[in-house]
Amino acid sequence: MQIPVVRNVLEANERLASVVRERVKGILTLNLISSPGAGKTSLLERTLTDLSSEFRMAVIEGDLQTDNDARRVAATGVQAVQIDTDGGCHLDANQILRAMDHLDMSNLDILFIENVGNLVCPTEFDLGEDAKVGILSVTEGDDKPEKYPLLFNLAKVLLLNKVDLLPYVNFDVERASTFARALNKDLPIFQISCTKQQGLRDWYTWLRASVQLKKTKGSL
Amino acid sequence: MQIPVVRNVLEANERLASVVRERVKGILTLNLISSPGAGKTSLLERTLTDLSSEFRMAVIEGDLQTDNDARRVAATGVQAVQIDTDGGCHLDANQILRAMDHLDMSNLDILFIENVGNLVCPTEFDLGEDAKVGILSVTEGDDKPEKYPLLFNLAKVLLLNKVDLLPYVNFDVERASTFARALNKDLPIFQISCTKQQGLRDWYTWLRASVQLKKTKGSL
Repeated sequence: MQIPVVRNVLEANERLASVVRERVKGILTLNLISSPGAGKTSLLERTLTDLSSEFRMAVIEGDLQTDNDARRVAATGVQAVQIDTDGGCHLDANQILRAMDHLDMSNLDILFIENVGNLVCPTEFDLGEDAKVGILSVTEGDDKPEKYPLLFNLAKVLLLNKVDLLPYVNFDVERASTFARALNKDLPIFQISCTKQQGLRDWYTWLRASVQLKKTKGSL
Repeated sequence: MQIPVVRNVLEANERLASVVRERVKGILTLNLISSPGAGKTSLLERTLTDLSSEFRMAVIEGDLQTDNDARRVAATGVQAVQIDTDGGCHLDANQILRAMDHLDMSNLDILFIENVGNLVCPTEFDLGEDAKVGILSVTEGDDKPEKYPLLFNLAKVLLLNKVDLLPYVNFDVERASTFARALNKDLPIFQISCTKQQGLRDWYTWLRASVQLKKTKGSL
């Protein structure tokens, strides 16, 4: 009984994700996925601030409740729209289509989508993005790629966040990277700290190259 | 289309949760819920070790993949059984019934269920437990009770874990506690560190009182 239902939901979502893809032609569209509190919003605040003179960016924020994150992001001066999932555990393509109606999409370079904090469900729903960006806080433990493989399998880039806390936690960067690359051979992995502004240069270099690829090739 | 399907799933689960409840009469049954990496398994390792001479305990472990956690828990000497959800984002009552068939349930005092690491979906599925135990790592941020209210609303006890990291992160214990108690007026909140073995005495006192309540009153 349950499986055909889930399949229908995912098929409907696939169809709407294709509509999103048509509407983000030339705009690098990134789906940020992590556990709650891994630092998605802090990463956006930092990135939007540091690259504001270089790119035209917008953000779609997904949350179960509250528009706190959209307000934090909007404070950097970029366009932001909030999706309130009303308790729902992930974003879907239909929500993205509706959110885009509230954004001026002309001349955008990058559209960031901050998914609901959840390492499982968001990974299964294509939002029409060019890449899923995985964010793993080092405080969560180096076994997470092995235990929650789907995100690490599908992500096109992985950010290990809060590396300023490495001296105080048991997290072996090598072990986490080995697990992640066993699932995803050439996965780029960047070690960053948003609060201490460390390691962000590699992430920005990846963003610049990806914006170029999207504009010239149409995809990553 | 989607809503009635979800309702059916939840109704079926409710019915099976009642069957679980019949089978755990006199056994304190706790459903541990948190984000990935908040420290559920470390909490169990510590608790099972420290209270082994006092209580007869068993553990049902839920994971998307791997039986790493069941092996960690079994290393303390208690009975442990692993549920592999094969990518599923939460445990349900039917899985608990099947797992209990692999446990010797006679003379147990406490049955711990470690749910899949996810702050959203596990909260919606009653497993026939006496209490949901919420675990929030201070590295996740003090806004989590406001942003993921359902768990904090339904939990009967909240453990703020990794308080040894408080000097290095932006986490206001007062702010998190205020949010949580706005949802759940008399929620007991204990500050603990499993790795540094801090603050566990209050948790153990709560466990002892709850075991007594379950044996004498039949519920918490």
